[in-house]
Amino acid sequence: MLLPLFALLAAAQAAPAPAPAPKPTAAQLAAAAPASAWGAIDPQDLLLIDFADGRRSMIWLAPAFAPVHVANIRTIARSGWWKDATVYRVQDNYVTQWGDATEKKPPAAGIVPKPPAEYEWAWGAHGVAVDNPYRDAYATRTGFTPSGWAVAGDGARQWLPHCYGMVGVARDLAPDTGTGGDLYTVIGHAPRHLDRNIALVGRVIDGMAALSALPRGTGGGLGLYEDPKQRVPIKRIAIAADLPAAERPAFEYLRPDAPVFAATLEARANRGGPFFTVPAGATDLCNVMVPVRVVGR
Amino acid sequence: MLLPLFALLAAAQAAPAPAPAPKPTAAQLAAAAPASAWGAIDPQDLLLIDFADGRRSMIWLAPAFAPVHVANIRTIARSGWWKDATVYRVQDNYVTQWGDATEKKPPAAGIVPKPPAEYEWAWGAHGVAVDNPYRDAYATRTGFTPSGWAVAGDGARQWLPHCYGMVGVARDLAPDTGTGGDLYTVIGHAPRHLDRNIALVGRVIDGMAALSALPRGTGGGLGLYEDPKQRVPIKRIAIAADLPAAERPAFEYLRPDAPVFAATLEARANRGGPFFTVPAGATDLCNVMVPVRVVGR
Repeated sequence: MLLPLFALLAAAQAAPAPAPAPKPTAAQLAAAAPASAWGAIDPQDLLLIDFADGRRSMIWLAPAFAPVHVANIRTIARSGWWKDATVYRVQDNYVTQWGDATEKKPPAAGIVPKPPAEYEWAWGAHGVAVDNPYRDAYATRTGFTPSGWAVAGDGARQWLPHCYGMVGVARDLAPDTGTGGDLYTVIGHAPRHLDRNIALVGRVIDGMAALSALPRGTGGGLGLYEDPKQRVPIKRIAIAADLPAAERPAFEYLRPDAPVFAATLEARANRGGPFFTVPAGATDLCNVMVPVRVVGR
Repeated sequence: MLLPLFALLAAAQAAPAPAPAPKPTAAQLAAAAPASAWGAIDPQDLLLIDFADGRRSMIWLAPAFAPVHVANIRTIARSGWWKDATVYRVQDNYVTQWGDATEKKPPAAGIVPKPPAEYEWAWGAHGVAVDNPYRDAYATRTGFTPSGWAVAGDGARQWLPHCYGMVGVARDLAPDTGTGGDLYTVIGHAPRHLDRNIALVGRVIDGMAALSALPRGTGGGLGLYEDPKQRVPIKRIAIAADLPAAERPAFEYLRPDAPVFAATLEARANRGGPFFTVPAGATDLCNVMVPVRVVGR
């Protein structure tokens, strides 16, 4: 008896006759994709969080969808406003949130203090490389932009979905839209009811465990750390483009307009490998995750 | 500027004219439900995990859906087979798994070594108190049984969905179905592609953070703890009915056949409170979560 839930390809050993070639997984398809299928992520769009314990989380910013909020975030990062930033909220099956735990700090100089509600836009305004053929609980139409983002909508309007690892801007009650000084990421089942109610500005593409595996807070029914000593210190939040070239991280995404992308989508809906006996025949939008890879690690 | 993502009801203060009564949330509806809306959970169906650090996770077992696997689990708990059990796998956005990390221990005496594949059954075999009106990415029909479980299916067959906190039986490649000696729970976005491929046997209803907030493992691309010292020791796994009465935990669930349940479902689809400006108009099955409460804490 063995137990790892996925005994990857372990079945292939010592078969008496050659087995049919196993159907490739989405990860295998991505790994075999040509270089032309991968697009570079602009280092201006990479926000890194260095924790005091040495761990790093990397966020891919989405300036096309929330330009004012993302411009604010770059300004805040460059201003030093986040020098005392901490993670101060971790609510199980919901969000991890970081920024200014005191809620008292004046906004960073040079930001737009009241950004517009960058929550939705015209369907297709950012292109749709692949229409997703599978049903979605919240949206009648979903797909993937050539720029590498899952989108949801109704054919008229479009928005980013609150999938695992997506990053949004904490806000007060409307009409407040948040400045970008406090951010959160989804650490549980996609809270898609937040879609169109809050600005999404990016996605955690590396080092997610530094945000998702933190102790849960107990304050206010919101996962706030009740004792300031519980807060997780952040050493630096910076834009990758501002780092010396030798230290600058680099990432690529699998382009949804590359032919291989549709195959990876189908592979997520009907999984390959020896483990699955009943194919799902579909996939939730938030179970797709546009593949991302680090360059040169 | 303030930051808690949900400033619960904070808007109500000092309004110049009386505001309309805010729409109640699902939690408020459940809290106001009459005693008759709550059903007791049989202490034979409560599996508790006591960790060496004093934390406890509580699992509600589902014997109606997987009777042989659940009978095995009770036998294993009572046999002492789990006395050296540890958590040995934590894969981000996927599962936490526990049991016999060595994979070498002979099965517990008295169990059914090869249970049937208790993965699906005839639609409605366990009753459907409430049909869920919202779309589902994986199933054409979903609902809630009077016994308190979300179910997915196609009107002919029915199965339990892999939502956050659901507990399943780790298995080897088919035809293996797992004994119940090694269990996992979902700690990320619902991996519904596992539905009908594996036996689900319960749901974590309390102490989820003791399983979800653990350090992620790095082994085999599966989140296995590579160093045995990383494994999280478990002091005891027991059935609540076997504890002395004074120590026995007790829980209740909101009955899906109680009139209030449909209102809580609608409240999950169109959230009340001052935060939301655009109602979702729908909810993912895995964002509903049948309410459960502890008795007498």
